[in-house]
Amino acid sequence: MELVDVAVIGAGPVGLFSVFSCGMMGLKCCVIESMDEVGGQCSELYPEKPICNLPGHQSILAKDLIVSVKGQIAQFSPIFVTGQRAVSLERDEAGERFIITASNGAIVSAMSVIIAVGAGAFSPRKLPAEGACKLEGKSLFYSIKDKKKFNGKRIVVIGGGDPVVDWSIALSHIASRVSVVHRRDTFRAYQGNIARMNDLVGRGKISVYTPFSVKEMFYDDEALSTKIILSRAGIVGEGGSSCNTIAIETDYALAFLGSESDMGEIKNWGLSMQRNKIEVSQATCETNVSGVYAVGDCALYDNKLTLLMTGFCESIQAAYSISKKIRPDTSSKKACFFS
Amino acid sequence: MELVDVAVIGAGPVGLFSVFSCGMMGLKCCVIESMDEVGGQCSELYPEKPICNLPGHQSILAKDLIVSVKGQIAQFSPIFVTGQRAVSLERDEAGERFIITASNGAIVSAMSVIIAVGAGAFSPRKLPAEGACKLEGKSLFYSIKDKKKFNGKRIVVIGGGDPVVDWSIALSHIASRVSVVHRRDTFRAYQGNIARMNDLVGRGKISVYTPFSVKEMFYDDEALSTKIILSRAGIVGEGGSSCNTIAIETDYALAFLGSESDMGEIKNWGLSMQRNKIEVSQATCETNVSGVYAVGDCALYDNKLTLLMTGFCESIQAAYSISKKIRPDTSSKKACFFS
Repeated sequence: MELVDVAVIGAGPVGLFSVFSCGMMGLKCCVIESMDEVGGQCSELYPEKPICNLPGHQSILAKDLIVSVKGQIAQFSPIFVTGQRAVSLERDEAGERFIITASNGAIVSAMSVIIAVGAGAFSPRKLPAEGACKLEGKSLFYSIKDKKKFNGKRIVVIGGGDPVVDWSIALSHIASRVSVVHRRDTFRAYQGNIARMNDLVGRGKISVYTPFSVKEMFYDDEALSTKIILSRAGIVGEGGSSCNTIAIETDYALAFLGSESDMGEIKNWGLSMQRNKIEVSQATCETNVSGVYAVGDCALYDNKLTLLMTGFCESIQAAYSISKKIRPDTSSKKACFFS
Repeated sequence: MELVDVAVIGAGPVGLFSVFSCGMMGLKCCVIESMDEVGGQCSELYPEKPICNLPGHQSILAKDLIVSVKGQIAQFSPIFVTGQRAVSLERDEAGERFIITASNGAIVSAMSVIIAVGAGAFSPRKLPAEGACKLEGKSLFYSIKDKKKFNGKRIVVIGGGDPVVDWSIALSHIASRVSVVHRRDTFRAYQGNIARMNDLVGRGKISVYTPFSVKEMFYDDEALSTKIILSRAGIVGEGGSSCNTIAIETDYALAFLGSESDMGEIKNWGLSMQRNKIEVSQATCETNVSGVYAVGDCALYDNKLTLLMTGFCESIQAAYSISKKIRPDTSSKKACFFS
């Protein structure tokens, strides 16, 4: 069990800066992050995006901002619990501390909680095909933890972005067959890799099915393999003709359809919410649950601007509010010693 | 007359960032600044201070922050009125615009006003000696605009900081006599320059009187010169003995005693104030006068933290509030397009 002053949920830019703001107030933090890496959307969705509206930066790439803020918080030695969702939030028996349980069972005990989950935890967008959910984790995967299991196997890779192109190239060297299914004719990926993939198609190492979407998938007991039924994209209903419906037998299917986010279990924590956002007092960033704060994109109050700068500022406000509660002698002057 | 969307009073870091925030909303600004240079305290009081609590900066010198923010606002071509205090704020006849008059008579007409004056306008700290105010601008000066007037003259330089040491060295080359008066025995200045000054003292080019303070100064009609009466610091009342009181005849006296700041004429603008700070709504940063906003160190609301980051954030909030008022179709989403 991690025993800290503050549990920070979410390690995006605002969660990381919350660790900084708490550190400046002498508060020790443990950060729980659902992704394996910190940085949130800055790392996951737009690492190469230049951010031009932070004071003192003509322009800084999102990924460089994360590297910099990580550098700023290193001095405070926060504890990181990554790759784990914060599942439950409860009071301890004495009612003095919060007990946060992560998805792997890890427990964090904290005086206060800062929720900085942005739009929520990321998860892969699921394949909207009949039967897909029954095969998830068996022959259908949304990420690759260890590619060795695909040695000598037949693989279908579904989607049209960089991961599809990158993985189809990589797997073509170890799999017995790689088929790529995309519902459009063109791929949105690094041009150099699209050319490499097309080269492998020309050499018979990869088959590409476009524009096709996955209509249905099921385990075929007779063939001892997974059968994937494709239908030509844009054709609704009983296509019938052979060129509109294709059946592929495969050992594994991999779908890379982007990610979506939601507030997940946080919805069950008794927090007053509106449209997936947590209501807070702008003055303190405290939620309706005393001791629980929300900052950044997930926090809502009148006239709220959803900006990185706003989130950073709310982090400071929350850290100050927490400091005042834990150590009543905290003056706003003391809080500003680092101005 | 300058016709703009927003008049920004004060060109410290938060005033400059207000120009940026307004620019991002498509609002044109005119900035009125009492100092000749922009940058406020960052330029004037602590240019070499490392600022370590801005996200994405391990450390940035105050003066470099100003250079950077100036770079960020250049794209919006703000109008600068520097070296002028904003003296009066009035509504135009139609009641639609504000008319701000600067100390040199310059007039700015603006839809809205953002006050970002920090602790107020800087002015040199005055010499607390009997008769000093009568000689100000005649034989007593608090800054040097053109040092040629001191050629061949007798000069007394008062104070103990860098400007005193620097100017006494510089003037020793052109003046007929330089005397330095300081109420302490030690100078707080660059050591290399103190050594140079002491060297000039040894060579008879500069006389140093410490610890002495200026008790009185007056124009001596008979001698056709200014007489300065020094008394040994720490000695109160009728010192009497010759080593406790010294009279110096001089052509000019220069006092460099640091600066002080106050809200000046802004106190007469009908704004609700508390302890030299302007009360605003945290949600909008608007004052009790509709259309007039305050941000940064001069703005006050419950739980306010006086931090650079807070001021930057308030700038954004004020710019958004103004944009919504001038162009009611401004959505918070539009305001965040630059996130």
